[in-house]
Amino acid sequence: DDQKCAPDGLMSSLTESVASTVVEKVTLSCISVPSRGYQAECPKGYKAICCSCTNAGCYWDISNDQTCLCQCAKPISTTVNRIGVIARCCKIAM
Amino acid sequence: DDQKCAPDGLMSSLTESVASTVVEKVTLSCISVPSRGYQAECPKGYKAICCSCTNAGCYWDISNDQTCLCQCAKPISTTVNRIGVIARCCKIAM
Amino acid sequence: DDQKCAPDGLMSSLTESVASTVVEKVTLSCISVPSRGYQAECPKGYKAICCSCTNAGCYWDISNDQTCLCQCAKPISTTVNRIGVIARCCKIAM
Repeated sequence: DDQKCAPDGLMSSLTESVASTVVEKVTLSCISVPSRGYQAECPKGYKAICCSCTNAGCYWDISNDQTCLCQCAKPISTTVNRIGVIARCCKIAM
Repeated sequence: DDQKCAPDGLMSSLTESVASTVVEKVTLSCISVPSRGYQAECPKGYKAICCSCTNAGCYWDISNDQTCLCQCAKPISTTVNRIGVIARCCKIAM
Repeated sequence: DDQKCAPDGLMSSLTESVASTVVEKVTLSCISVPSRGYQAECPKGYKAICCSCTNAGCYWDISNDQTCLCQCAKPISTTVNRIGVIARCCKIAM
């Protein structure tokens, strides 16, 4: 009895129906991670998409997909107790 | 007849075919929403991923996943009829 | 032999389990594309999600989903051999 449980027809219809369910359910899930100083890290499972540097004259770059780095023309005076970086971290979720 | 209908092999091949179908079908759909002043809102169905503050000395943050806020050291002089904020809004679409 | 291989109960649980596995496989794939001057372009297949302008007094906008543009109050002095723009380019991948 070699009746295969999922003949090709069933496989492709299963694929179509599950794929459209997934497409309806998946969404972008994003969080903001603020941090003092020049660096902010996204939690595991998230990727750094972009960053906000709170001090004037700084621009941002991202290293290893996880970490926002603010590069500043003038060093941030550490006495200023202000947030330095906000990482915007996203993932695909259901 | 304990012939299981979905043996592991079938499950993993189904998962593979569904995953590749989904990746083919879905895409990142993004729009830019400019607005005067300090705030720009993403339309329903989109999420705010990041923002651009058009006035020097401002940085951005995002509230409730929808709204870009520019926080500026100096108030934007309202007589300057310039865009203040650009929200970058994205969603997963087919 | 009308033994249907996938009655409704099996279908929804199959969908659930495949869907959650697929969501783990489908991910955001992002790269940073640095460029001198005022403009940086994302490679084919990627979309420009946001940008970083490395010169103070500039803000960014995105045109045709692919290109980061830095709009600067003062022109970037071309002798300054510094990166002008970093485009953050993303796509959905496995």
